[in-house]
Amino acid sequence: MLLKAMNWMDVERYLQQDDRIVIITGACEQHGYVSLLSDILAPLEIAKQACRQENVLIAPPLPFGISPYFAAYPGTLSLRPETFAVLLREIIEGLMAQGFKRVLVSNGHGGNTGILIPLLVEIGNAHPQARLALFQWWLHPTVDAIAQEAGLPQHHANWSENFTFTRVGAVPDADKELVVVPRGVSAAITRSLLGDGSYGGPYQAADQIMERFFAAAVQAMVGAIREL
Amino acid sequence: MLLKAMNWMDVERYLQQDDRIVIITGACEQHGYVSLLSDILAPLEIAKQACRQENVLIAPPLPFGISPYFAAYPGTLSLRPETFAVLLREIIEGLMAQGFKRVLVSNGHGGNTGILIPLLVEIGNAHPQARLALFQWWLHPTVDAIAQEAGLPQHHANWSENFTFTRVGAVPDADKELVVVPRGVSAAITRSLLGDGSYGGPYQAADQIMERFFAAAVQAMVGAIREL
Amino acid sequence: MLLKAMNWMDVERYLQQDDRIVIITGACEQHGYVSLLSDILAPLEIAKQACRQENVLIAPPLPFGISPYFAAYPGTLSLRPETFAVLLREIIEGLMAQGFKRVLVSNGHGGNTGILIPLLVEIGNAHPQARLALFQWWLHPTVDAIAQEAGLPQHHANWSENFTFTRVGAVPDADKELVVVPRGVSAAITRSLLGDGSYGGPYQAADQIMERFFAAAVQAMVGAIREL
Amino acid sequence: MLLKAMNWMDVERYLQQDDRIVIITGACEQHGYVSLLSDILAPLEIAKQACRQENVLIAPPLPFGISPYFAAYPGTLSLRPETFAVLLREIIEGLMAQGFKRVLVSNGHGGNTGILIPLLVEIGNAHPQARLALFQWWLHPTVDAIAQEAGLPQHHANWSENFTFTRVGAVPDADKELVVVPRGVSAAITRSLLGDGSYGGPYQAADQIMERFFAAAVQAMVGAIREL
Amino acid sequence: MLLKAMNWMDVERYLQQDDRIVIITGACEQHGYVSLLSDILAPLEIAKQACRQENVLIAPPLPFGISPYFAAYPGTLSLRPETFAVLLREIIEGLMAQGFKRVLVSNGHGGNTGILIPLLVEIGNAHPQARLALFQWWLHPTVDAIAQEAGLPQHHANWSENFTFTRVGAVPDADKELVVVPRGVSAAITRSLLGDGSYGGPYQAADQIMERFFAAAVQAMVGAIREL
Amino acid sequence: MLLKAMNWMDVERYLQQDDRIVIITGACEQHGYVSLLSDILAPLEIAKQACRQENVLIAPPLPFGISPYFAAYPGTLSLRPETFAVLLREIIEGLMAQGFKRVLVSNGHGGNTGILIPLLVEIGNAHPQARLALFQWWLHPTVDAIAQEAGLPQHHANWSENFTFTRVGAVPDADKELVVVPRGVSAAITRSLLGDGSYGGPYQAADQIMERFFAAAVQAMVGAIREL
Repeated sequence: MLLKAMNWMDVERYLQQDDRIVIITGACEQHGYVSLLSDILAPLEIAKQACRQENVLIAPPLPFGISPYFAAYPGTLSLRPETFAVLLREIIEGLMAQGFKRVLVSNGHGGNTGILIPLLVEIGNAHPQARLALFQWWLHPTVDAIAQEAGLPQHHANWSENFTFTRVGAVPDADKELVVVPRGVSAAITRSLLGDGSYGGPYQAADQIMERFFAAAVQAMVGAIREL
Repeated sequence: MLLKAMNWMDVERYLQQDDRIVIITGACEQHGYVSLLSDILAPLEIAKQACRQENVLIAPPLPFGISPYFAAYPGTLSLRPETFAVLLREIIEGLMAQGFKRVLVSNGHGGNTGILIPLLVEIGNAHPQARLALFQWWLHPTVDAIAQEAGLPQHHANWSENFTFTRVGAVPDADKELVVVPRGVSAAITRSLLGDGSYGGPYQAADQIMERFFAAAVQAMVGAIREL
Repeated sequence: MLLKAMNWMDVERYLQQDDRIVIITGACEQHGYVSLLSDILAPLEIAKQACRQENVLIAPPLPFGISPYFAAYPGTLSLRPETFAVLLREIIEGLMAQGFKRVLVSNGHGGNTGILIPLLVEIGNAHPQARLALFQWWLHPTVDAIAQEAGLPQHHANWSENFTFTRVGAVPDADKELVVVPRGVSAAITRSLLGDGSYGGPYQAADQIMERFFAAAVQAMVGAIREL
Repeated sequence: MLLKAMNWMDVERYLQQDDRIVIITGACEQHGYVSLLSDILAPLEIAKQACRQENVLIAPPLPFGISPYFAAYPGTLSLRPETFAVLLREIIEGLMAQGFKRVLVSNGHGGNTGILIPLLVEIGNAHPQARLALFQWWLHPTVDAIAQEAGLPQHHANWSENFTFTRVGAVPDADKELVVVPRGVSAAITRSLLGDGSYGGPYQAADQIMERFFAAAVQAMVGAIREL
Repeated sequence: MLLKAMNWMDVERYLQQDDRIVIITGACEQHGYVSLLSDILAPLEIAKQACRQENVLIAPPLPFGISPYFAAYPGTLSLRPETFAVLLREIIEGLMAQGFKRVLVSNGHGGNTGILIPLLVEIGNAHPQARLALFQWWLHPTVDAIAQEAGLPQHHANWSENFTFTRVGAVPDADKELVVVPRGVSAAITRSLLGDGSYGGPYQAADQIMERFFAAAVQAMVGAIREL
Repeated sequence: MLLKAMNWMDVERYLQQDDRIVIITGACEQHGYVSLLSDILAPLEIAKQACRQENVLIAPPLPFGISPYFAAYPGTLSLRPETFAVLLREIIEGLMAQGFKRVLVSNGHGGNTGILIPLLVEIGNAHPQARLALFQWWLHPTVDAIAQEAGLPQHHANWSENFTFTRVGAVPDADKELVVVPRGVSAAITRSLLGDGSYGGPYQAADQIMERFFAAAVQAMVGAIREL
């Protein structure tokens, strides 16, 4: 149910019997050894499965988010928070003008959350008939429970973002000690503290953990779609 | 060390031997039974004590933040995230042009955090010689520890925001059951779920707990100032 | 009737029988020997008295205005005119959405006037049922008459801004010769011409003059509120 | 010395020996019985003479200003203050990048003043080598003196804007009583108070007064150019 | 039918029986040997004749357009595309609020086209009762046919912009070889490639060709007005 | 050479020996019977081959462009021109800060061209050391020559956009008569004129034509990359 696999007539037919759409946001930013687009690839793969199951449309993912902290890592592309806000506002308002009434934003990047929440609320305040919600797969209790049970806390660019579809090369065997980066420090300081970009912990987990982890995320998203 | 108690000559003298300043952000929004300005009053009272101790300047608090979720409660005044971002950017850039190099933003409202972090990072990226940091009193481990020890979890508009200086009338005796408001829902839905505005728990705590709680916040802020 | 002394329930009750609110704007800028916040403190103290008398709400003052001319004086914090405009627009539109229909902007800083007037007109054009007005205490004929009678022309940072509540230290005894600063010149030139920041005249006036001056301002504001 | 009568080679030659330019701002707004463009035509005619005398370039006048108060009069076209600010900022920054260092803004519309002043100051603060100034012909003491001597106070759309080059038809013989329009009221209220658009006084003056009035404005502008 | 020759009463009478207006956009940019304002002068002279014939109002031309490519030629003044968009948006929305329903934008500068089209569409989408259209004289088939028949291709700043009313001095006799400037290159590169600013071909054409060329443009515009 | 298949270390290594990057822009808009994302898919597939050959990085495509004309077709998502401009500006400026000096924007949507050109010029003006260029595959002479030779003019949503990778279902056999849509008309009028969304001509071409067409586009892009 990706827009890229549809023409407008398909969307018109869809709107005759449904009014839901999923918008994927994320980032193009350093993720240590895994893909720069991990924050798009993860919610996209999850959404593909969840939305196929629930027959829901997926808008083209916006591949840029708010990532100034990682600007010193080449390949990180960051928008100003105000630009991200205006862009999302126009996309969502445009969807509503076409008849979409229930919008689930599936966000893959924690740095976007603080803008997305007020944005969704403002749009909801202006469109009382709309239903807008935010889904963030990695924070969902049933997803995090898999990590907890396995004794593997989630951290940026550690095992929890290392899926078959985000992997772009080998990762170190040894675990990395946890790194604490004070909030608000510059990109240069962040890089000097973080080194390879991971916040610590193992760089990968067993395949079966990743499968359960991913499956839990899909199920959590199915739930979020049904609650729309 | 409030700017309102100083003239420009005082600031010029200060800048000859110091380059630190505290900026207070918060919100004008419903806080159940306590003051609409609680998110300003708390960081301001804490800052007054911490900054007196450390001899640091405090800029005039910005009394408006990002609060669209509470727009259905009269007296809540909310800025768009992009407006909040631009305003803070200009204030901080202006301070840097005058010689302030170390800026501690003491934010009293969780809804501002997601904008403040990228903003501070962006300004830091543009001013490599500057040191910017974010302090949020209620999230500091030593402050939250007081709440945990007392068995009193912090929630919006419960006991944890009910200080002598935020109290504007009587509060209910009974505890309120915790309320869960999904992130991103409209102001109307938020109000229908929240009722009086508190997210639950006791509406007040014993004076001695509040005193320890406040003292811990002051000490945490002193620490944050020293680390600048 | 300050919002900081109220909770949202108080405002809801107020709105059941009234629809007026006072918004205070000013500046954080050099005022020679008196407080950097004089342009907020004066309209705030005046509003406290006038609004208590007339039972009218006062929104939290915005402590930043348009003051690029004084940027070379440390402690002056200035917003771009476009930022000031957008911020005020959002605050006033937000108040109108909550039921406030009559808005009196009490502005304490001449540099804001040229933005406030078109802003109020534009908001009024978009809300035909609203009543918006601008009050500027020091320009009111009955207030200026006190100055004229006393033979004491008002100038920036001279006696006319030296109240008990703006005083932060001693002022020179001797009068200052009037200084003319061409409009539009840079902050550096302005400082080189102005020196201590006062535009000239006596630095202070007798207490009884200040009391009559202040009382006239309160009465003028009461009149402006009644005309809303 | 109008840009429209020059090609770029002429400007390049000019810049080899001069760095001054005049920017004309005004409004397209109701002026009672006289031209909607009076606020452009007057400073333009004055500038043509003054700049011919002083050999100074004139940029193409911006024919739109800040006029929301007159929006209820057909033919009035108004910009938001923030749009006017951004536009002027770009034009002046562009001129500076080409080598113009001394810029005289000759503004024909009082409603623009409050934006132009901070704008010029901000640009001056960012370009310490530049010299920016604001000229407003009708406020110049030697110009207003002609009006005072003739016992003819200047008011919007009265005799003082009725030149041969702004006249577009007949005007009433009788004087109009002065009208007071409160600052900040909506366009609809403004029109209901103002009627024909003039703020009062005679609609025209004797030709010889207009000639002296105009000549004084030219001379005042020559002075302003020389002081740049 | 220029606004500068009318007062608001004239416009009000006009609106009682018509709802059309022409907006002229162009540029202030290098045109080789001819006027910097050629892109305004040409559509303005054409509009004067076409609109006199059709009794249609002409708003004051906006003399600044999008011309960053020519910024290295002194006298070129360029707006950012976003500023140009916002300004036009406000002007057209303002006209619609006064009762103008049919708006013909006569644009004289190719660099504006890519913004004007989406802008007109967006305004049309928001005002279903409005009729907006874009007219660009030099691209009209009947106008270009004159050039083709005469064996004189149109290029920036060649004969096709050299009218009696844009001529500001002598032009070279010899034809210039055509110059190709890659799209998107900087102003410095553009100037180094273009030299005198013309894109090539003859610098002037016989008077009778120019007269037929101009007459065709007037007729084309008359047609565009009638189709509104 | 897609960023999604790389981590930041890969990009850092790349930047040690290269400074080129391709940015893909397009649209999410109706394309008749073919994919809503055709304007992204075509330049992306072309870029994949051209960039593999030339070893050049490809940034994540921005899947939203300027498409207000097609807003009445469900699935079309359009940005305001000013939003598109600001977003691209930030992305390109960010790349330059990381060491990319040569940027080729490969744009797949004609509606973006008018913004992209001034944007690239402005960025080039501010970064004299940079080389920015615009590539638009379908307009390249060697590409269009294939269409001309085959007697198949290119039009929106006809055969020329019907590749194996944009096809999402069956298309009509018969050719469509050419449709002319006046520039600047609203989305509703556009849809009423266009019907199925194609501007006319055959809906598909023989496979071997499409292969030559695509191959020519790849070769044209290789040329554009080499000229950077």
